[in-house]
Amino acid sequence: MDEQSGYIIAPDPSHTRLTRRVVGFDQTGAEVAQDVIEERPLTIYLNAQEIVTAMTIGDYPEYLALGFLRNQGMLEGAGAITRIEYDAELEVVVVRTDGPTNHEEKLKKKTRTSGCAVGTVFGDMMEGLEGVILPQAELRTSWLYELARKINTTPSLYLNAGAIHGTVLCKGDQPLVYMEDVGRHNAVDKIAGWMMQEQASSADKILYTTGRLTSEMVIKCAHMGIPALVSRSGFTAWGVELAQQVGLTLIGRMRGKRFQCLAGAERITWDADLAQIKDEPKKSGRKGSA
Amino acid sequence: MDEQSGYIIAPDPSHTRLTRRVVGFDQTGAEVAQDVIEERPLTIYLNAQEIVTAMTIGDYPEYLALGFLRNQGMLEGAGAITRIEYDAELEVVVVRTDGPTNHEEKLKKKTRTSGCAVGTVFGDMMEGLEGVILPQAELRTSWLYELARKINTTPSLYLNAGAIHGTVLCKGDQPLVYMEDVGRHNAVDKIAGWMMQEQASSADKILYTTGRLTSEMVIKCAHMGIPALVSRSGFTAWGVELAQQVGLTLIGRMRGKRFQCLAGAERITWDADLAQIKDEPKKSGRKGSA
Repeated sequence: MDEQSGYIIAPDPSHTRLTRRVVGFDQTGAEVAQDVIEERPLTIYLNAQEIVTAMTIGDYPEYLALGFLRNQGMLEGAGAITRIEYDAELEVVVVRTDGPTNHEEKLKKKTRTSGCAVGTVFGDMMEGLEGVILPQAELRTSWLYELARKINTTPSLYLNAGAIHGTVLCKGDQPLVYMEDVGRHNAVDKIAGWMMQEQASSADKILYTTGRLTSEMVIKCAHMGIPALVSRSGFTAWGVELAQQVGLTLIGRMRGKRFQCLAGAERITWDADLAQIKDEPKKSGRKGSA
Repeated sequence: MDEQSGYIIAPDPSHTRLTRRVVGFDQTGAEVAQDVIEERPLTIYLNAQEIVTAMTIGDYPEYLALGFLRNQGMLEGAGAITRIEYDAELEVVVVRTDGPTNHEEKLKKKTRTSGCAVGTVFGDMMEGLEGVILPQAELRTSWLYELARKINTTPSLYLNAGAIHGTVLCKGDQPLVYMEDVGRHNAVDKIAGWMMQEQASSADKILYTTGRLTSEMVIKCAHMGIPALVSRSGFTAWGVELAQQVGLTLIGRMRGKRFQCLAGAERITWDADLAQIKDEPKKSGRKGSA
């Protein structure tokens, strides 16, 4: 825990393995040096079974593997995690459990998702959602603005290099664990892995993400048991529908003063003094918020 | 072809099937109605084989299926496309070929990609790249600014509802085919499908996308034979590396006056008068450009 910032895990923009300096040209034809995000394969095994190769910036491979398998429901009935082995040279991470696993089943069903890549959710991510109702929780609008302020001013790979998603596990107005990755789902999975490892409570948490509020983001958040999901990006209809179904407070398009809550508004306490909140300059044209 | 805009295919924000009006609350606690993007499954078959279920806004299913299969290399040696059947009720599209297909091979290898979702590129997307060298082509900076201006002011689902990616096939300073989708790769695949259907030339085209310039975007662009890829978002290191390898002109972080070219700058003619280009207001904090 960083005493000043209150972060348990914050981004490390100085981490030389996560970005690379590339030389190119700017709009004037002048040479420029730009730090760009690394993107490297990480192959995830569950016991002896190869599950998937993820493209990731490469930090926290153990959390990524653990969180991915958990969010895919692949650890159900798998017994205790006995060991997680990461081999940086082979770019392989192996999660070992002491029970049988049902991943063959899971691998059968594939759904290409609405994320930015050709995506796969293994079959029962959705099925697992039936009957899920997220716990009651407090959510103050003053927290939301304070979280956005802290997160947006936290030194990050995004501020250095762009082209990266961030997801932050928060409690009240305090960001706790800030993960970044080239795939926004990797960032969420790394947080899920950390929560599992640390046996962190979820009912008192808020998940802040830079990504869009699609069905898959809502499903992951629900599986993680977190009752509030906040983003500066927008919504999909199915994301809103699922959030209403599981009782998730879904807040999007949060920029400056503005935000919209399209599900679970009953948790919100409107205690912020909007006169005190700095608004973002209105912007022209596409803002790439997708 | 729209005589005024020059578009062959432009977004249709009035298309009622692509968005849904959802009622929620804004930052003041006042009720707001927001149009949100639809996200629905589309299951793609190649002949008798189910390949994948995509989450898509649902327009141009035939182009999406055709472009997806083509960009995955699944149509190689498959002979001619004999028929594409779309069943809106079943949300299924079947691409039929008169030859054998190698999709079983392709389905074996999975790579979770750096897009925003749990992603899958089938094995040899990368292998297919060996030896690919994109053709010589002209690229004027005046075209880039004119394209950005036209595209950003084109009525679109993004401007209505946000949370959607856009990809535009362009020629010179003229946008021709503007596709939008919840998955940015769906938008690219729809363009690939259209190009295949129309047997459109690629050497004289420019691909403009709102998405990040990751390895997978570069690979798709290279497979489509398009020598220039432009985005308002940023780069990944591997995306830049692959672009340099195949001789793709890679331009990113294009906002207002500014852009960066990190590969293939030799194609660029710096003919724009920057004094005439309106810049975007500098913005504070995260802009969600990922």
